[in-house]
Amino acid sequence: MKSLTEYLWFETQAKRELVRVTDTVAQLVKKSGVKEGMVLVSAMHITAGVFVNDNEPGLWDDIWDWLAHLCPEKDYRHHRTGEDNGDAHLKSLLLHHQVVVPITAGKLDLGPWQQVFYAEFDGQRRKRVVVKVLGD
Amino acid sequence: MKSLTEYLWFETQAKRELVRVTDTVAQLVKKSGVKEGMVLVSAMHITAGVFVNDNEPGLWDDIWDWLAHLCPEKDYRHHRTGEDNGDAHLKSLLLHHQVVVPITAGKLDLGPWQQVFYAEFDGQRRKRVVVKVLGD
Amino acid sequence: MKSLTEYLWFETQAKRELVRVTDTVAQLVKKSGVKEGMVLVSAMHITAGVFVNDNEPGLWDDIWDWLAHLCPEKDYRHHRTGEDNGDAHLKSLLLHHQVVVPITAGKLDLGPWQQVFYAEFDGQRRKRVVVKVLGD
Repeated sequence: MKSLTEYLWFETQAKRELVRVTDTVAQLVKKSGVKEGMVLVSAMHITAGVFVNDNEPGLWDDIWDWLAHLCPEKDYRHHRTGEDNGDAHLKSLLLHHQVVVPITAGKLDLGPWQQVFYAEFDGQRRKRVVVKVLGD
Repeated sequence: MKSLTEYLWFETQAKRELVRVTDTVAQLVKKSGVKEGMVLVSAMHITAGVFVNDNEPGLWDDIWDWLAHLCPEKDYRHHRTGEDNGDAHLKSLLLHHQVVVPITAGKLDLGPWQQVFYAEFDGQRRKRVVVKVLGD
Repeated sequence: MKSLTEYLWFETQAKRELVRVTDTVAQLVKKSGVKEGMVLVSAMHITAGVFVNDNEPGLWDDIWDWLAHLCPEKDYRHHRTGEDNGDAHLKSLLLHHQVVVPITAGKLDLGPWQQVFYAEFDGQRRKRVVVKVLGD
C-alpha cells in the first residue's frame, strides 16, 4: 500500500472565505503514485469545513446566506470562554469538515461539476487541512 | 490491496426521490472479494446525496419536509446562471453526498436498521454514484 | 494491509448525551499497529452521530440548542410506527453519523483542538459504534 500525507496551510484575508483546492489535491494524488485508492481531505480546525460542490460564485453567495441563516452570529455559551466564534463551530458541523475523494486510474474520480473547497469560517490566521492519500 | 470501482446510474421519474442501494453495494463488495476494508458510496453530482438511515416510508416523508424547510425552493443567486436548482445544491450539502461503509468478514458492517440511500434532489436525468471498494 | 475492527458500546444515562471517544479510538489505532492509514468511526444506529469538534462544555450546550432548533421534537410521520424519535433521526442526518480520522506515524492525525465525539440522540439503551482501522 502506498500513502502520502501533506498539509495545506491557509491564512485567508477575510474572516469567511471559500478556497478551491481541487487542483492541489489532484497534484498530491499524482505525487503519491496511487492509481487505485482514496484521498481524505480533512480540516484540522473546528471552525472550518471541506466540501464538494459547484464552482459557481452565485451559489457560493447562496451558501454563505444559508449558513448565516442556519448558524447565525449571536451570543453563544461558548463565548464565555472569551471566544466569539460559536457560529463558526456550527457552520463546520453543518457543512462537515471532510470529504473522501476516490482515486481511479491515478486521477480524482469526480463528477464533471464537482470541485473540492476549503471553507473558512473564522479566518485571518494560519490554519491547516490534512490530505491523506491511500491506495496502490 | 484489492479494489473495485463501479458506477451506479440513476434517472429518477420524479424530481425528488430516494432510492435504496444497500443490496447493490453489498453485491459489489462481494464481487470485489474484499474481506476487510471500506466501501465509499459517493454521488458524482452536486444536486444529489448519499446517506444512511431507516427503511421507513413515514420517515422519508419527514426527511423531505425537513429538507424543504431548511433548504427551501426560492430565488437563489445561482439562478442567474439559468439554473433553477439552488435548493438542490443546499440539500446536497445538508444531507452530505457520501458515506463510507466498513467491510468486515466480506460483508457490509451495518447496524440492524442501517440502509444506504441515494437521494435525488434534481432528477429526471441521468446521474451517477461511484462505488469504490478498497481492502484485502 | 493491516486492519482492526472493534465495536464501542454505549448505554447513556440520559436520552441525549455526548461522549468523548478520542482516547479510545487512539488506543485502538495503537493496538492495530497501523502507522499510515485511516480509521473510520461510524455509528451503527440511525439515531446517533459521530463528529469532530471542540472539547468545551459551553459549546456542547450550544450544539444541543442548535440541534433542538433545527430538528425539533414534534409529531413526525415516523411516529405512526409507534416510535417517538423522529427528531433523533434528523439530528443524526444533520450532524452525520461518521468521521474518518487519518493515521500518521502511528497516531491520530488530528488538529490541536479536534476531539472525536459520540452523540446520542435517543439513548438509555445499548447502542454501538464500529471502529475500523485500515493501513500499513
